[in-house]
Amino acid sequence: MEFSSKIIEQAVDAFSQLPGVGKKTALRYVLHVIKQDKLQVDQLSKLVSQLKTDLRFCSKCHTIAEQEVCDICLNPSRDESTVCIVQDYRDILAIENTGLYKGHYHVLGGLISPLEGITPSGLNIETLVLKLDSGKVKEIILALNATMEGETTSFYIFRKIAPYNIKLSAIARGIAVGDELEYADEITLGRSILNRVPFDSLLKK
Amino acid sequence: MEFSSKIIEQAVDAFSQLPGVGKKTALRYVLHVIKQDKLQVDQLSKLVSQLKTDLRFCSKCHTIAEQEVCDICLNPSRDESTVCIVQDYRDILAIENTGLYKGHYHVLGGLISPLEGITPSGLNIETLVLKLDSGKVKEIILALNATMEGETTSFYIFRKIAPYNIKLSAIARGIAVGDELEYADEITLGRSILNRVPFDSLLKK
Repeated sequence: MEFSSKIIEQAVDAFSQLPGVGKKTALRYVLHVIKQDKLQVDQLSKLVSQLKTDLRFCSKCHTIAEQEVCDICLNPSRDESTVCIVQDYRDILAIENTGLYKGHYHVLGGLISPLEGITPSGLNIETLVLKLDSGKVKEIILALNATMEGETTSFYIFRKIAPYNIKLSAIARGIAVGDELEYADEITLGRSILNRVPFDSLLKK
Repeated sequence: MEFSSKIIEQAVDAFSQLPGVGKKTALRYVLHVIKQDKLQVDQLSKLVSQLKTDLRFCSKCHTIAEQEVCDICLNPSRDESTVCIVQDYRDILAIENTGLYKGHYHVLGGLISPLEGITPSGLNIETLVLKLDSGKVKEIILALNATMEGETTSFYIFRKIAPYNIKLSAIARGIAVGDELEYADEITLGRSILNRVPFDSLLKK
């Protein structure tokens, strides 16, 4: 595509670096911005640059925070001895939304993926080991995606944690609430039978 | 969704004003920006605000331009007496890409759509009438979408142009190059038979 203006061309290039955005979608965004009020556009421009200047990664759990240490790590009412390992910030949002977890988190920043060139050294695993060395952690919960990469990463962390004699659990895999058995895949259904739970534990939630 | 940071929340709101972007996609964009280099982020922020400050609408054809009048309207080798009416800037890009049109354009800025509350007064039709009044225009080509809104707008413009005794044409509707007749809808196929063209005119292109 050839644009009539250098600025449009550069803006389309910049927008098309966003995940899942191609040139056509980027152009739609650009044309939309041109039609917006100046106030809204200035706000978007300011916020984009603030995302980089005013946010950082929590030095304890690596989530995104406005200060050196995030609110969850600073909160004294949260249980420091339980650490839930997640891939990124969005997983923390999802788990926090349930309102059922009161421990700390540790954000890996990705999953091991040889195809995408992501090795364990590219993830926040060293600081996890330091946390274990401190002796404060009693339980680790693996809450990674149920994908090949998630399982690989879970297994890698399992091997890292093994020497520490720390309780290690993973979030339950099973039939999603509202799903019909008929349409569940056999691996999920098989696991949900193997990992069946006492019925009264379901009543509590 | 509840975010841990006011800046993330505001940035998600700002991004989700882009067309077709919901909260989840906006959050993906925000997290991507946070992980980008400072240079790239500053570039995006600067370009967004430049879209508003450095671009304007051409005073003659209403397309997006860096100066008061766009390059096409300024180009002396283009035929001022033929004006192609399009919905927006993207249609000009598409037609320019063909390399087969050497006239001027007129951007309506939308299509008549009672459902979306877009009436003729919301489109650039007054300036089109002024152009016709000037007496320089010999032919008008309607190149609007083949949708209900496009046809309504074409008909509205047809009525506006009728008193002027100007040649009025519309881009050909028919079977797309590469398409199979078997799968064409009957209206398109019907029109392509009624509007058949001399075979040797196809050989030239």
